[in-house]
Amino acid sequence: MKYTPINFSKKFKLFSDYWAPKTIAQLNNYQFKLVKFKGEFVWHKHEETDEAFIVLQGQMRILFRDGELKLNSGEMYIVPKGIEHKPLAEQECQMMLVEPAGIINTGDAGGSLTAEGDVWL
Amino acid sequence: MKYTPINFSKKFKLFSDYWAPKTIAQLNNYQFKLVKFKGEFVWHKHEETDEAFIVLQGQMRILFRDGELKLNSGEMYIVPKGIEHKPLAEQECQMMLVEPAGIINTGDAGGSLTAEGDVWL
Repeated sequence: MKYTPINFSKKFKLFSDYWAPKTIAQLNNYQFKLVKFKGEFVWHKHEETDEAFIVLQGQMRILFRDGELKLNSGEMYIVPKGIEHKPLAEQECQMMLVEPAGIINTGDAGGSLTAEGDVWL
Repeated sequence: MKYTPINFSKKFKLFSDYWAPKTIAQLNNYQFKLVKFKGEFVWHKHEETDEAFIVLQGQMRILFRDGELKLNSGEMYIVPKGIEHKPLAEQECQMMLVEPAGIINTGDAGGSLTAEGDVWL
């Protein structure tokens, strides 16, 4: 049987839109998603789940209501469920997110940056 | 409030043993673990869960009963539950694993490479 690795760099070449996560792998009922961040996202929260942010290339920030976090390439952070947060990136930043299948990127906030769910690369 | 990123490189400096995963973060009931691979691991399977292998530095291989896979830095693979596999690495390889809390590294195989569970860095 042929086994094929999932290569992040090759996957990132397949899309150019920002803030719209693409699923690359599924582990039980959890999904690994690649996404490009640039600019400011919306304040939102996910009442039902924690969310993992892993920076693969570049840097970004996550604002919280009572502080903020800077994440560089080779760093990760888990935003706990129910905690409002606002991701932003001055330059394009390549991220991997890990979260349960079915999670909407804008959480409770909705709005124009809401991405189509369950898009696979 | 102070928010602190999880830095992979800093975490890898905190241990030197091989094949013994250390938990660095938890997402709901799933854990992110760092581990150094070198040499050959045992053939084993996890009947209850898929398992994510993400190469952060170096390269490694996963043998299957009917094929094999080479994974380089910046690549990942999800071994489905119930599938026998044998990880190996000629040189030291820095990995991140993602799997449910409570999973034992040697799965059904046991033996001397079985690591203590739930060790946090």
